[in-house]
Amino acid sequence: MQRYFSNKKINNTFLLNEDDWYHINTVMRNKNGDKIEVVYENELYICEIKNNQANIIEMVKIENSINKNVCLVLPLLQEQKMSLVLQKATELGISEIIPILTERSKIKITDNSDKKVMRWQRICKEAAEQSKRLDIPKVYDIVSSFNKLDVEGFKMVCSTREKENTLKKVLKNNLNCDKIVIVVGPEGGLAPSEEDFLISNGFIPVSLGNNIMRVETVPIYLLSVLNYVME
Amino acid sequence: MQRYFSNKKINNTFLLNEDDWYHINTVMRNKNGDKIEVVYENELYICEIKNNQANIIEMVKIENSINKNVCLVLPLLQEQKMSLVLQKATELGISEIIPILTERSKIKITDNSDKKVMRWQRICKEAAEQSKRLDIPKVYDIVSSFNKLDVEGFKMVCSTREKENTLKKVLKNNLNCDKIVIVVGPEGGLAPSEEDFLISNGFIPVSLGNNIMRVETVPIYLLSVLNYVME
Repeated sequence: MQRYFSNKKINNTFLLNEDDWYHINTVMRNKNGDKIEVVYENELYICEIKNNQANIIEMVKIENSINKNVCLVLPLLQEQKMSLVLQKATELGISEIIPILTERSKIKITDNSDKKVMRWQRICKEAAEQSKRLDIPKVYDIVSSFNKLDVEGFKMVCSTREKENTLKKVLKNNLNCDKIVIVVGPEGGLAPSEEDFLISNGFIPVSLGNNIMRVETVPIYLLSVLNYVME
Repeated sequence: MQRYFSNKKINNTFLLNEDDWYHINTVMRNKNGDKIEVVYENELYICEIKNNQANIIEMVKIENSINKNVCLVLPLLQEQKMSLVLQKATELGISEIIPILTERSKIKITDNSDKKVMRWQRICKEAAEQSKRLDIPKVYDIVSSFNKLDVEGFKMVCSTREKENTLKKVLKNNLNCDKIVIVVGPEGGLAPSEEDFLISNGFIPVSLGNNIMRVETVPIYLLSVLNYVME
């Protein structure tokens, strides 16, 4: 059954947005009487479609499977790579994404950055529906530099300079935290001054080993590993 | 420095293929006297370009970092997803890929399957160059069904029916093998008869937990995890 997220409930009915109704009517070709899943405030409901309304039939009790709180601080990438990372990160259980402008980012902030963030948020919503999540990862507004980044939790930065602190070592000692924040670099890596700034602000530098990965592979790799070790 | 693979050496010179020379001359705009890396029989050489020849300057000693032998048995996917998996699998250290036709594969074997395999092999070669590997993953010819699949090693099949054997449990007890073979399912999953056949042929069914991932995400997730645990 196809899943949709709603953020408004009126009596026994959920409001869905235009994109959802397009998907329901035109892509899925659902008819009156067909059933869909609707998630509202992290709870799952089975609903029946009637004249572009989603009427609640029943609430489904699901054991709490909300993911551990993982926040990815992601440099601006080409749109295609950005979409890939957002989609895969959502499948792999990410909870927050903070897009950031880095010294070596080739992509710049433009006037339509609000629209971009909305687009990224939509990608996460769709991926969350597909992977049957009960929550949608939150995409924050683009942060203009690391000294404007304000995050709490166990903080890591992927480093190519670091040799001692492997991911395995670091995770072994720090999995009992409430929230993990990971900074990955852009193509060309973080500038040494950026890495130094982060380290002096409590970020632990982490080596990802010998494999050389493309920029968009790094967050997918990291989130796969976190998913595995936290399972 | 850009890396290329060669499979032929004449005296002090490596032969590279047409695509490589196109890349060197037109994409990278290298000139006579510029240097490139050439890998030949798993050894790395620094070479100088002169009139479309790659002349050896020196061999570079690298500590043996050839990856553990991991073989991915991959159902035929849409070309775009196939390319993504092959590229990421190469970055994550895969050694062999066996494309296979499954009961629920939506993609069929066509007359030009040889060309497809050559294309997939080329994707792996390019990804191996980018991620500075000393070997290129081998892409085998398409296998027409599981009962034609002939593989040795520690064998796993990703299963949605399996609940007990998590990836963590299975890997914990079986990392001392020489080779790991993993079967992943197509969209819609393996048919129960296919899974039964594999299990009766020594494949261990493995649960990937609660996250619902797209078909192309599963191998990327698995290879990330293997990479991490075997590091």
